[in-house]
Amino acid sequence: MSKQFDVVVIGAGPGGYIAAIRAAQLGKSVACIDAWQNGQGGPAPGGTCTNVGCIPSKALLQSSEHFEQANHHFAEHGIEVKGVSLKLDTLVGRKNTVVKQNNDGILYLFKKNKVTFFHGKGAFAGQVDGGYAIKVTGTTEEDLVAKHVVVATGSSARELPGLPFDEKVVLSNDGALSIDAVPKKLGVIGAGVIGLELGSVWRRLGAEVTVLEAMPDFLAVADQQVAKEALKVLTKQGLNIQTGVKIGDVKATAKSVNVSYVDAKGAEQKLAVDKLIVSIGRVPYTGGLNAESVGLQLDERGFIAVDDDCKTNLPNVWAVGDVVRGPMLAHKAEEEGVAVAERIAGQHGHVNFATVPSVIYTSPEIAWVGKNEQQLKAEGREYKAGSFPFMANGRARALGDTTGFAKVIADAKTDEVLGVHIIGPMASELISEAVTIMEFRGAAEDIARICHAHPTLSEAVKEAALAVDKRTLNF
Amino acid sequence: MSKQFDVVVIGAGPGGYIAAIRAAQLGKSVACIDAWQNGQGGPAPGGTCTNVGCIPSKALLQSSEHFEQANHHFAEHGIEVKGVSLKLDTLVGRKNTVVKQNNDGILYLFKKNKVTFFHGKGAFAGQVDGGYAIKVTGTTEEDLVAKHVVVATGSSARELPGLPFDEKVVLSNDGALSIDAVPKKLGVIGAGVIGLELGSVWRRLGAEVTVLEAMPDFLAVADQQVAKEALKVLTKQGLNIQTGVKIGDVKATAKSVNVSYVDAKGAEQKLAVDKLIVSIGRVPYTGGLNAESVGLQLDERGFIAVDDDCKTNLPNVWAVGDVVRGPMLAHKAEEEGVAVAERIAGQHGHVNFATVPSVIYTSPEIAWVGKNEQQLKAEGREYKAGSFPFMANGRARALGDTTGFAKVIADAKTDEVLGVHIIGPMASELISEAVTIMEFRGAAEDIARICHAHPTLSEAVKEAALAVDKRTLNF
Repeated sequence: MSKQFDVVVIGAGPGGYIAAIRAAQLGKSVACIDAWQNGQGGPAPGGTCTNVGCIPSKALLQSSEHFEQANHHFAEHGIEVKGVSLKLDTLVGRKNTVVKQNNDGILYLFKKNKVTFFHGKGAFAGQVDGGYAIKVTGTTEEDLVAKHVVVATGSSARELPGLPFDEKVVLSNDGALSIDAVPKKLGVIGAGVIGLELGSVWRRLGAEVTVLEAMPDFLAVADQQVAKEALKVLTKQGLNIQTGVKIGDVKATAKSVNVSYVDAKGAEQKLAVDKLIVSIGRVPYTGGLNAESVGLQLDERGFIAVDDDCKTNLPNVWAVGDVVRGPMLAHKAEEEGVAVAERIAGQHGHVNFATVPSVIYTSPEIAWVGKNEQQLKAEGREYKAGSFPFMANGRARALGDTTGFAKVIADAKTDEVLGVHIIGPMASELISEAVTIMEFRGAAEDIARICHAHPTLSEAVKEAALAVDKRTLNF
Repeated sequence: MSKQFDVVVIGAGPGGYIAAIRAAQLGKSVACIDAWQNGQGGPAPGGTCTNVGCIPSKALLQSSEHFEQANHHFAEHGIEVKGVSLKLDTLVGRKNTVVKQNNDGILYLFKKNKVTFFHGKGAFAGQVDGGYAIKVTGTTEEDLVAKHVVVATGSSARELPGLPFDEKVVLSNDGALSIDAVPKKLGVIGAGVIGLELGSVWRRLGAEVTVLEAMPDFLAVADQQVAKEALKVLTKQGLNIQTGVKIGDVKATAKSVNVSYVDAKGAEQKLAVDKLIVSIGRVPYTGGLNAESVGLQLDERGFIAVDDDCKTNLPNVWAVGDVVRGPMLAHKAEEEGVAVAERIAGQHGHVNFATVPSVIYTSPEIAWVGKNEQQLKAEGREYKAGSFPFMANGRARALGDTTGFAKVIADAKTDEVLGVHIIGPMASELISEAVTIMEFRGAAEDIARICHAHPTLSEAVKEAALAVDKRTLNF
């Protein structure tokens, strides 16, 4: 007989596992289905984020940053090291341990919150009395019936046409996190978040990295003042970044990849690399979901069609995270997961899409929330912008990392903060203050008048807010 | 003839230089007087903070943290180094360079904002037509007349009775930042911010450090849950911290110091060290100010007596920063400096003393804002508290630094945030979000509902806010 649940969540990534836990907290009987396997065939909940995304990339970024410091910056601090060498298997092994801690953490959370976990693939099997039939196949085989279904199946890396990922020489984010020897030459197609983060990791570890980007503007998604600074700094670090290129033939052999492309000036170029990371975007993952069996509607781009509340075309079927519209960000998925669980429980969950922050974990980090200058110009909105360089920040000087700046954009008349853009040390952490201000619809003057601890990097945000009114105190 | 100014600021520490700049921005003619000298006898504005406080200590903390990482944590990351050694003169030299950058930055800011700087000691020389006569002596000799005077003369380290600082074996914060060889045994009297930060620096660089504290509770000023964690972690790192001791005879020779004390159990103890840092608090510095010539009133503890608006007993004489009541913090001084400048200009400057954050830059860092549990208990206020360990935070795991926790305290009825207390990586930066929430008198529920970027340490603050309502998602 089928097992009955109030809520069945398909997918245990950040959107799914959080939705499951929140629904259980609100008194629902909840199951969560996830097929991801660890190296031993055991369950590995957490989705792309935990297994081959946010978490492992940050582990590698941290380790490679230490390596970079040891090789290039220790001398300034009076620390002498003889012969810095890399045991890549230990470095990657540590990353795997961090991932496993997170996998195990989620399994523990399921137990603690009384969420029933099924290790397998979840698919719709038709509408039945009392809801939807859901079939689990794989490690576990099970028939479930759910009053509510939350689809949180995530996304997968987009391939270059005709160039499938073999994860040996042609790498997605997955393979790029587990290269077994530092490649001499590494190519990256796509200068987005993933391309830049993983390109940075392997550049620090010794690879010669070339990044090819089709868009004419570097980091078109970011404020262009930030993007310009990022391009300058990353190039200086040794990333060879080329924008406005047109990728032609790409031929992979067992040991290398040859990329033909036309550069921004129209000249034909060839790039031969040992490994190629393809990071040209991600596509919603609905494979095997059997959406058609219940008539679950997708949009023209393959996303599950939902409204602002994550409702699909079917009653009591919801979808959250990368598989629906909006930025493919773990924390956006989490917010949607919480909101959907609360709606299922009759509460009034809400996600403010206008205050979802974005982060790129390069060094320096890049983070922003709200609108950037080019967006506001396009909207014809009048604004004031102010920025403050970390070069003039005492903490940044003490850290020895003074790259970048903080920038605050406010409405020209009301002074309401419309966007905050940071490139610099710990930008990922500094952005939380900015999100908070925007949630309260605070003004630049508010940031400027709030006491910031000295010496901290967060003072740069305060000074940027002062700069909006042309009255920086320390620049 | 005397030079006339609308505003003369005595002291160019964080309170003074900021007051001077802000007053100049508001159209006043402003002079700032400061006597601090660099190694070449030139001006070194910035006060204790820049010269022998916040800034140099953070430079040493960063360098010594790299040394600690290289010695104890690189292996986990797969980074092998042969023979890590220390060139202390380079490390200290870098610190001096960072200090000089900040000194020079302030001189540049004075020029940019048209503040006239006098390198010398400022003192009252009586009331005259048009305001107060101020005499500058030292490198510059000058007679000024000021409509308004802002006293920002700061504080100096408190000595143990009968044990003057020689800055060779008996060290204040000043000497402790410039020790020329890592001492084998280092004693610290006073487990406050300065003692713990500098004790940590020299412990990481190889000294065997004993910290003696008279108070029975460790870090009595911090939330006691935080203090308990800090004691555990710092002890584990190798700091020998003893609380509840009674210091007896302390005898210094040219090469060592012998400290007799009674420990918490009442047993007589002896400690022999190569150097002794005495960090038992700081006293307001009014030496040479000639306050009595104009009848400027001090309080019974030697502080310049001021009201909440930093007004002294004399018309148009103000005082800010360490030389007045309140916490001796650079950012508190800055806020007072801005507010006083704005009041002088007829504006309505305001400092919210309830939202001035505190930071201790140990590793892990400690930061808080608002009230702690013991204060709320003493007030009889009903509250809810929630905390979240960095052990359960993905970014902390990726960083390899999972010590500590974030804690949010909210009013039991209204849920208004009353205090946030953090011990953990980058606590100093995470606290800015908490200050912002408190400035808007937000609720724990607000923090819990604001989108926090993943993976960041700031998510721990969000989870602590969820913990207030017993609904953490990741713990």
